Amino acid sequence: MKKNTLEHVAGNGLINRRHLLGMGLGGLGLAVSDSLLAADAGLQIPAWSKTPGPGPSAYGGPSRHTGLQRLAGAPNALYPGGGISRTPLQHLQGVITPNSLHFERHHAGVPDIDPAGHKLVINGMVRQPLVFDYEDLLKYPMVSKVYFLECSGNGRSNTQGVPGGTAQTIHGLVSCSEWTGVPLSTLLDEAGVQSNASWVAAVGADAASMGRSVPIEKAMDDVLIALYQNGEPVRPEQGYPMRLFVPGWEGNISVKWLTQIKLTAAPAQFRDETSKYSDLLPDGSARQFTFPMETKSLITSPSGEMKLPQAGLYKITGIAWSGSGSISRVEVSADGGRSWAEAMIESEQRDKALTRFSIPWEWNGGDAILQSRATDSAGNVQLSREAVVADRGTNAFYHNPGIQSWAVNSAGEVANVAV
Amino acid sequence: MKKNTLEHVAGNGLINRRHLLGMGLGGLGLAVSDSLLAADAGLQIPAWSKTPGPGPSAYGGPSRHTGLQRLAGAPNALYPGGGISRTPLQHLQGVITPNSLHFERHHAGVPDIDPAGHKLVINGMVRQPLVFDYEDLLKYPMVSKVYFLECSGNGRSNTQGVPGGTAQTIHGLVSCSEWTGVPLSTLLDEAGVQSNASWVAAVGADAASMGRSVPIEKAMDDVLIALYQNGEPVRPEQGYPMRLFVPGWEGNISVKWLTQIKLTAAPAQFRDETSKYSDLLPDGSARQFTFPMETKSLITSPSGEMKLPQAGLYKITGIAWSGSGSISRVEVSADGGRSWAEAMIESEQRDKALTRFSIPWEWNGGDAILQSRATDSAGNVQLSREAVVADRGTNAFYHNPGIQSWAVNSAGEVANVAV
Repeated sequence: MKKNTLEHVAGNGLINRRHLLGMGLGGLGLAVSDSLLAADAGLQIPAWSKTPGPGPSAYGGPSRHTGLQRLAGAPNALYPGGGISRTPLQHLQGVITPNSLHFERHHAGVPDIDPAGHKLVINGMVRQPLVFDYEDLLKYPMVSKVYFLECSGNGRSNTQGVPGGTAQTIHGLVSCSEWTGVPLSTLLDEAGVQSNASWVAAVGADAASMGRSVPIEKAMDDVLIALYQNGEPVRPEQGYPMRLFVPGWEGNISVKWLTQIKLTAAPAQFRDETSKYSDLLPDGSARQFTFPMETKSLITSPSGEMKLPQAGLYKITGIAWSGSGSISRVEVSADGGRSWAEAMIESEQRDKALTRFSIPWEWNGGDAILQSRATDSAGNVQLSREAVVADRGTNAFYHNPGIQSWAVNSAGEVANVAV
Repeated sequence: MKKNTLEHVAGNGLINRRHLLGMGLGGLGLAVSDSLLAADAGLQIPAWSKTPGPGPSAYGGPSRHTGLQRLAGAPNALYPGGGISRTPLQHLQGVITPNSLHFERHHAGVPDIDPAGHKLVINGMVRQPLVFDYEDLLKYPMVSKVYFLECSGNGRSNTQGVPGGTAQTIHGLVSCSEWTGVPLSTLLDEAGVQSNASWVAAVGADAASMGRSVPIEKAMDDVLIALYQNGEPVRPEQGYPMRLFVPGWEGNISVKWLTQIKLTAAPAQFRDETSKYSDLLPDGSARQFTFPMETKSLITSPSGEMKLPQAGLYKITGIAWSGSGSISRVEVSADGGRSWAEAMIESEQRDKALTRFSIPWEWNGGDAILQSRATDSAGNVQLSREAVVADRGTNAFYHNPGIQSWAVNSAGEVANVAV
């Protein structure tokens, strides 16, 4: 380590990324004599370079050395098919989530829908009710955009004081995909919305008949009937053959297995916007229709239950997002919020999409508390955990974007803490 | 069909997309009486809405109703592990290719590499040779960008006069992903490039020791050591644990299973840049190092071997790309190039990435020849098939971006034709 050449930009080891890029990381690569390269670096020719491997295949899969999986809870006989699975955020990079690892939330499991037997109805306060087959919808002009999707219950264990956990177990209900579909506004224009219609009620074809209400202004803005995810037909667990996709808003409103859009003068007051997906406040009242997901960020590495092998140079990296715009900057602290440095943005800064950030960190082997704090293009700054609790108490259950703190102890163990 | 209200913008049925969007597609959705909706539209409650399905799972998969696969050739005992598989372009939308469907090209099969035993060496004309472990590289700042990757032999059957085929069999050697990795320039700066080094020789750890030479200017520009693809570790068939990624250039130069970068004063003259991946001209000479992939587009639907069931309204859609910039516009013809209309762009127009286009088309039930023609941000216009042949003959094998023509006959059958 060339410790004396690293320019520190905030407390406890955060390093100037530009300075670092200009000079190299100074020691991550092992310097060797070129003439003795093979012997010095142990460069024997490995077995996999000596024998041809299997040829091309019809359908690819990940390396057996990665083993990445979602974390799903045990089945509950009283709630058949219900539950969640969580994305392994701490092992991913970039911003796209592979479809096989996209988080899930089901209310009555995954229906096995034959698209030839599926219909989408648009009715209620329209000039002309319409019924669409799957093949009909494929003929419409579509839009492809990269958007995050986050369950409104993501991160709730932190405000409820649940100790421990990993990036996956605490925050794994957020993923990001290229969503392709028909603008809902196109179909609503075709049906002809009556002037006094102010909401659309969206209903799924699963056994829960999952339903949610969307204000007409949002429905006519950027909402899609999503038919493709990361290039391929939407997966069954994401709503095959079609789902509503409501960019930036709590995930539950992006109704999967979409079969009906009904124009109404008032919200439908479905179960999942009254008894659930409303935020219980300390005074016993509840906030309803808290739609946009708030500005949030998360350090994915180092993160909970990882172990740093030794003092030295590390890369802090993570993701940031906002339901109200793009991410304009992310700050990182290594001393529990006493000092902050601006992180580098590694990805595109898209509207309502995950954004990847990083900053180099020289861990001195002592205690540290790592935090990140995002600011979005609308000027919203990520709330602290205390600010979230002060605003909505500890039983709101949904909408908890509070700053995540990861404590590093002198053994290099990383743990979720409340500070 | 409200035929009389559609505004035609080019010959043989191409329709003004803006006009269309304003008025609805006029008939794709079945108009029904709201009070008789269920009976009129056959809306019985399907079986999948009555019983809960399976719950969340550890690893997702596509619907059994899609069945999308790559097309791989039969194994060749004289070329163990060698060959290709092709992406089913005609069934995808948006621009991202799911990793399981990304095309493959292997020269000695897919090595089963344990990243703990894999090394990346940088040596040759450098101040300090370096060896990197996989874990070392994960600590560097990375860049995430969406880029296409295309085999330089993609589309070659068309200039060689091979009849028939589909979008997949003719053009399925192009795919598009979010690639995340360490800029090669970062590692070269750390090793210290000598002033007279002008090429890098990149070598893979497969049994073919696949090698390619890259000019130093490109190596210091946008080349990555790619470690992640669409968010997850690069798949084995794409180079796990790491590959070179050379944006916009012929796919073969993005060396998979990368194990060595050697700085040199001249190209290494590897087998795959001399006897292969050079373009044989009619006079017997060959062009070498024809790196950037040219401006190209392709209608993916309707496309070869599809069948249009009846006269009426269709969506023409496809992809366009260029190794020299972003796509600035795509034109479509339905009359074999006599008249052209500008298509709508459905995706972001990214540098060196696929771009999705579409235009509505009213098929009158007669003969038609569908074509698309892309223009990139550098002003390059896609070549006709004749222009490609005039420039490089019919045996160049590589680099054939010529305009694709799909003929539609009165039976609705779509076929690859040369016009």
